[in-house]
Amino acid sequence: MSELKIGLVGAGWMGKTHAMSYRAQSLAFGGKPATPVLEVLADVNDEIASRAAREFGFNRHTADWREIIDDPTIDIVDVNTPNDLHFDIAMAAVAAGKHVYCEKPLTNDAKTAFTMAEAAEKAGVVTMVGFNYIKNPVQSLARRLVADGEIGEPNYYRGSFSADFLGRPDIPFSWRNDKAKAGSGVIGDIGAHCFAYLNHLVDQPVEEVVCDLKIVIPERPAPAEHGGFSQDAGATGQMVQVDTDDVATVMFKTAGGLTGHMEMSRVSLGKRMDVGYELTGTEGGVRYFYDNINSLQVYKEDGAQDTRGFKHVVMGPTDPRYAAFYPVPGIGAGYNDFKVMEVQDLIEAVAGGKPAYPDFRFAAEIQRVIDACILSDAERRWARVDEIAI
Amino acid sequence: MSELKIGLVGAGWMGKTHAMSYRAQSLAFGGKPATPVLEVLADVNDEIASRAAREFGFNRHTADWREIIDDPTIDIVDVNTPNDLHFDIAMAAVAAGKHVYCEKPLTNDAKTAFTMAEAAEKAGVVTMVGFNYIKNPVQSLARRLVADGEIGEPNYYRGSFSADFLGRPDIPFSWRNDKAKAGSGVIGDIGAHCFAYLNHLVDQPVEEVVCDLKIVIPERPAPAEHGGFSQDAGATGQMVQVDTDDVATVMFKTAGGLTGHMEMSRVSLGKRMDVGYELTGTEGGVRYFYDNINSLQVYKEDGAQDTRGFKHVVMGPTDPRYAAFYPVPGIGAGYNDFKVMEVQDLIEAVAGGKPAYPDFRFAAEIQRVIDACILSDAERRWARVDEIAI
Amino acid sequence: MSELKIGLVGAGWMGKTHAMSYRAQSLAFGGKPATPVLEVLADVNDEIASRAAREFGFNRHTADWREIIDDPTIDIVDVNTPNDLHFDIAMAAVAAGKHVYCEKPLTNDAKTAFTMAEAAEKAGVVTMVGFNYIKNPVQSLARRLVADGEIGEPNYYRGSFSADFLGRPDIPFSWRNDKAKAGSGVIGDIGAHCFAYLNHLVDQPVEEVVCDLKIVIPERPAPAEHGGFSQDAGATGQMVQVDTDDVATVMFKTAGGLTGHMEMSRVSLGKRMDVGYELTGTEGGVRYFYDNINSLQVYKEDGAQDTRGFKHVVMGPTDPRYAAFYPVPGIGAGYNDFKVMEVQDLIEAVAGGKPAYPDFRFAAEIQRVIDACILSDAERRWARVDEIAI
Amino acid sequence: MSELKIGLVGAGWMGKTHAMSYRAQSLAFGGKPATPVLEVLADVNDEIASRAAREFGFNRHTADWREIIDDPTIDIVDVNTPNDLHFDIAMAAVAAGKHVYCEKPLTNDAKTAFTMAEAAEKAGVVTMVGFNYIKNPVQSLARRLVADGEIGEPNYYRGSFSADFLGRPDIPFSWRNDKAKAGSGVIGDIGAHCFAYLNHLVDQPVEEVVCDLKIVIPERPAPAEHGGFSQDAGATGQMVQVDTDDVATVMFKTAGGLTGHMEMSRVSLGKRMDVGYELTGTEGGVRYFYDNINSLQVYKEDGAQDTRGFKHVVMGPTDPRYAAFYPVPGIGAGYNDFKVMEVQDLIEAVAGGKPAYPDFRFAAEIQRVIDACILSDAERRWARVDEIAI
Repeated sequence: MSELKIGLVGAGWMGKTHAMSYRAQSLAFGGKPATPVLEVLADVNDEIASRAAREFGFNRHTADWREIIDDPTIDIVDVNTPNDLHFDIAMAAVAAGKHVYCEKPLTNDAKTAFTMAEAAEKAGVVTMVGFNYIKNPVQSLARRLVADGEIGEPNYYRGSFSADFLGRPDIPFSWRNDKAKAGSGVIGDIGAHCFAYLNHLVDQPVEEVVCDLKIVIPERPAPAEHGGFSQDAGATGQMVQVDTDDVATVMFKTAGGLTGHMEMSRVSLGKRMDVGYELTGTEGGVRYFYDNINSLQVYKEDGAQDTRGFKHVVMGPTDPRYAAFYPVPGIGAGYNDFKVMEVQDLIEAVAGGKPAYPDFRFAAEIQRVIDACILSDAERRWARVDEIAI
Repeated sequence: MSELKIGLVGAGWMGKTHAMSYRAQSLAFGGKPATPVLEVLADVNDEIASRAAREFGFNRHTADWREIIDDPTIDIVDVNTPNDLHFDIAMAAVAAGKHVYCEKPLTNDAKTAFTMAEAAEKAGVVTMVGFNYIKNPVQSLARRLVADGEIGEPNYYRGSFSADFLGRPDIPFSWRNDKAKAGSGVIGDIGAHCFAYLNHLVDQPVEEVVCDLKIVIPERPAPAEHGGFSQDAGATGQMVQVDTDDVATVMFKTAGGLTGHMEMSRVSLGKRMDVGYELTGTEGGVRYFYDNINSLQVYKEDGAQDTRGFKHVVMGPTDPRYAAFYPVPGIGAGYNDFKVMEVQDLIEAVAGGKPAYPDFRFAAEIQRVIDACILSDAERRWARVDEIAI
Repeated sequence: MSELKIGLVGAGWMGKTHAMSYRAQSLAFGGKPATPVLEVLADVNDEIASRAAREFGFNRHTADWREIIDDPTIDIVDVNTPNDLHFDIAMAAVAAGKHVYCEKPLTNDAKTAFTMAEAAEKAGVVTMVGFNYIKNPVQSLARRLVADGEIGEPNYYRGSFSADFLGRPDIPFSWRNDKAKAGSGVIGDIGAHCFAYLNHLVDQPVEEVVCDLKIVIPERPAPAEHGGFSQDAGATGQMVQVDTDDVATVMFKTAGGLTGHMEMSRVSLGKRMDVGYELTGTEGGVRYFYDNINSLQVYKEDGAQDTRGFKHVVMGPTDPRYAAFYPVPGIGAGYNDFKVMEVQDLIEAVAGGKPAYPDFRFAAEIQRVIDACILSDAERRWARVDEIAI
Repeated sequence: MSELKIGLVGAGWMGKTHAMSYRAQSLAFGGKPATPVLEVLADVNDEIASRAAREFGFNRHTADWREIIDDPTIDIVDVNTPNDLHFDIAMAAVAAGKHVYCEKPLTNDAKTAFTMAEAAEKAGVVTMVGFNYIKNPVQSLARRLVADGEIGEPNYYRGSFSADFLGRPDIPFSWRNDKAKAGSGVIGDIGAHCFAYLNHLVDQPVEEVVCDLKIVIPERPAPAEHGGFSQDAGATGQMVQVDTDDVATVMFKTAGGLTGHMEMSRVSLGKRMDVGYELTGTEGGVRYFYDNINSLQVYKEDGAQDTRGFKHVVMGPTDPRYAAFYPVPGIGAGYNDFKVMEVQDLIEAVAGGKPAYPDFRFAAEIQRVIDACILSDAERRWARVDEIAI
């Protein structure tokens, strides 16, 4: 059995989660078609890199991600850094002929995202982006049902991804609140997931959007040190201005005439993870709500009229991805399991020749829609996606 | 105990529901501060008027609503006709010094609605509009909690009113599909309820909207005869063009800085009555979903952090309106009960001197927002509500 | 069109609810096959009788229910008194050849209940008992699906009816806490509804039960005056011993081999109306939860395996009873609507020759099961229903 | 940092899940207070042992579990075999002074379970049993709230664990249907989880039970080969008699006066994992439903009466176990995460001196209750738990 050597950059939450996923792959999927080997872990903080390499099970560590690029034994470069480093690392990896697995959002603007996608395609390397929510097997089921015409022609979509992880005003300022680092607020961070759900379900590029971005908490306490989701305020007593959006609302229209809207928020007090969608078609509908994480609701306009209704389908081992973990339905597949499935898709693409999904191009197209949303908000008008130069 | 003589126009579903409500009032509320008397029922179809008068319990009937206006003994004119007759009947009633209870939407455009509101205010008569959804006692609770600052300053709102009563393409053409009669589609019919929920919760006029209106089913079978919700197709085999919207999506901004969005639909297959809202504030939130009709969800950012969450509050006899019907909580108050509560509010306004709510002005302001939505859709841009002349 | 003259005894909540229902019947059902006329209202308290007669719309009132029996013009005697008066009134009415509509529980013991059923059957009068929960149209649908074999052979049932209307210990003592008046506690009061759901769904008499009855709050404040659900404590400061059960748990087995269990409670803090059932069969299942009052969940073991799941069916106007009130599905039919449907069933039985359902015998059989439950609890063993002499 | 060498027996689903958990521990918990080392994997089938050792990441494999016992370097023996081997392996491990981590149910009868518990206690080794459902952090919260008196004195409990993994009659016969191998049916297999939930929440030994056991599908197709949850029927066409229960219903009473009931099933068609409980106390209640896997509902009888209700608390990083995986609340912790938390508890007990929970004694006490249930069913009467000799 072949092996794939992984060089992973970034030892935060996502880096850890990726490492856990590689370590679970050979158990869940028997190390087929290849076994990932945790070769090098890079983090800009050498002390963190050293400790994390030990805890995550990497053979080596480094403070310089370029060592990974320069190492000819590395097969896959796995990028878990802040967004503003994605481009440099991914482009270097592609140039070195390596496959790239990058967390979302791919970049902070469409132009660089398409540059990355084209470079990777030209180089013939596999790329994958961590839109993990669509890796939940119920999303494969949803996609298949829609593709098979089970709901007829889709005509309306509602998406939501509202949370409150930055809801309290005492949560300190972080890179997420800083446009220079994050590019945008929820529209980029969470919007990426929202449009991934949409594009996963229907093959219709978004053509037009109108968007409203809003900063709900205009200043936050300066943090003791910059951290990801760290919620401990620093003791300085200083306040920092927030310049990225906390809430985004979008209406859209696709090439195929599908319309709909989306809401995304990180300050919706009380909504911990109010994530989901509803897609209506001419013969039925599908809908999904994250708090019933393993369940899909399906409606068909057929059968006796007085017993029609949304069927609540619970995921089970009829799906082989699910069956790799659990022999019975509804047992509680979770976020980390879906991440292992994502890693398995990556390995099947690299070592098994299956198409990579979702790849850099998928992410770049989403980034272009996000840029159109930002333009729409700035100019307070409907914006066409093709107004965004790429 | 005093009596209030009712002249009711229109013997369809709403006419029947109003009549049932008057008949229940003296039981639920002891006929206080006055007892409604079902005096005259008018319907343009004399045969229907005759039969309905008997079934509904009216003393008399007529095919000409002007008889009601001319009858000096009538206290309240109750208008349940198609929308395009509201103006003439209500204006005549006001001119005759009668109180007016009118079904929503008040009219098909803002200008006439404000004309009606001003005429009524000048005449000093009581007006009420049948936005019955806000009469559910849980909505009084919600309004009070928001007014009391329990959720802090409201900053985001999501509303939905998606149904599928016109979802199947074989449902025949009716006046709802005809712009000449209905003025608009869901944006007027259902949008009225959506904005009523919003205005009921927060005292902030909507200032700006962007709206997308969509016809999903462009033609329908010609009906055997025109009817309200009748779903029996005629046998003619002919198709009629639909020119009113089936789905409406709206984003809005209020004077107070609240933003949000709404979805309304009559063709969302499988969604029988997907009605509800979510209002987020700086210290908490309230939300309501119609399929738990007697329940309100309330979130407060206080108490021990690890036991915060949305509280599901079930309506009970702590509310006197509810207590008029049921001595224990959660027993299943329904649509018709809320309509009786609406009638009781009317009677208390007419005979008890309480402020009428919601009155013609409330409805007119909503109609102006709806007109702005139609303008926004037509010109594919954000529209200010004050662009609509009144 | 014919009329049916009603003599109603008891002006409490149920009396009022029945009167509201009669008044709504001619609107909802066009007064067909007959129109009820509110002729006489009796209440032992003459002042209450007088006031209620006026509010409820009765032509006359009396403090002596025997006047109703003696009045040859009365067609239906409607009994809404405390349980311990049901027998005398109903037997007198039957003896006078009148039809009887009686609230549940029919009596406090099986022997008298069967005596009543047999007397009525011998007299050839129509009887109906107010098990209103099974009048919800979704229950007709459930019953039909089961009868049609849609779920195969039923093999397991779970029922619950847990509320907390007596949950707080400061709620004063009432007749419900007094065995002399109420016969038993929840097992009789609420158990009647639980077994009605079961018997409505499956035609299998319960054969054996094991039951545990429990008093959770052993003493309560003496009330200012005895009242139904009144929750105002008296000011005497005295406590009264409770001798009726607050919680009942039952396991059972039917003649057909169906097994299951039930929970009923009036002290389950926080559960306002946690009412519902789940019935599993060899090919599927149905389940119902009262907080989605208009919805039935149906499961069928057929179709593609990976899209099976419980279908959530929302009641709509495909059901004629529902259609009498609402032209569109899911609009919020409630408790009082179901009571009107019950009255309509009564009128169709009396004036239209349809079988009365559920009648005294239905109630008597339930009462026998309840008595077996009480026996089982007392002797701490499984009890056979046929141990209860009738 | 110290290491703990693991010898794991049984390469089925649970063996795999345990191995995954050990491999995730150093990532989630930094390998503290010790790092598990996957040393030897034993499976009676040498080929499976060999393959699984490679996939699971073990250093060595064997077909004879006694090699693990005899290996002085092994610290923890991890038992994932069919139930009937638990005793021999665990007793040998204890005799060899090794710590033991064993899947539930600990054994097929109470006597052997207590023998195991006493042997382990005498030997001073750590024991842990895989009641993983109570390792979900929301269950720690629930236990703490109850212990802190937040719901007052508990008085009623409802538990359910109804699934349908053996619901279809074409699912072939397996060891679960064979009393000789499994000891009992759901009462032992699933009942263990049900009573674990109960005992986790309240410190009150169950004293009395009445139980009904039922075989719903009396014969099943002979399997091609015996397997765990394998649902592929063999092709022999032969049928095998089932002699273990498919459904169990239990009513119980604890020493402290708590009463309640439980339902457990593996044939409830449509219910994939209908798992949960409701515990009512004198001042509130807690309830949990597995399909909202990260959420606990809490009711308190305090605050303004008209805004009381069950609070839906979503798990988040305020709990350190949860925080080891996810930095934001409600993100989808699942079954496998909880298993890692269980392994972490094991490691903290072995290497960190924390009390092991739940240990063999916890499991033995549950097994005694299960034996009392079986006795109750056999003799059709209430049974006292102390009737079961240990």
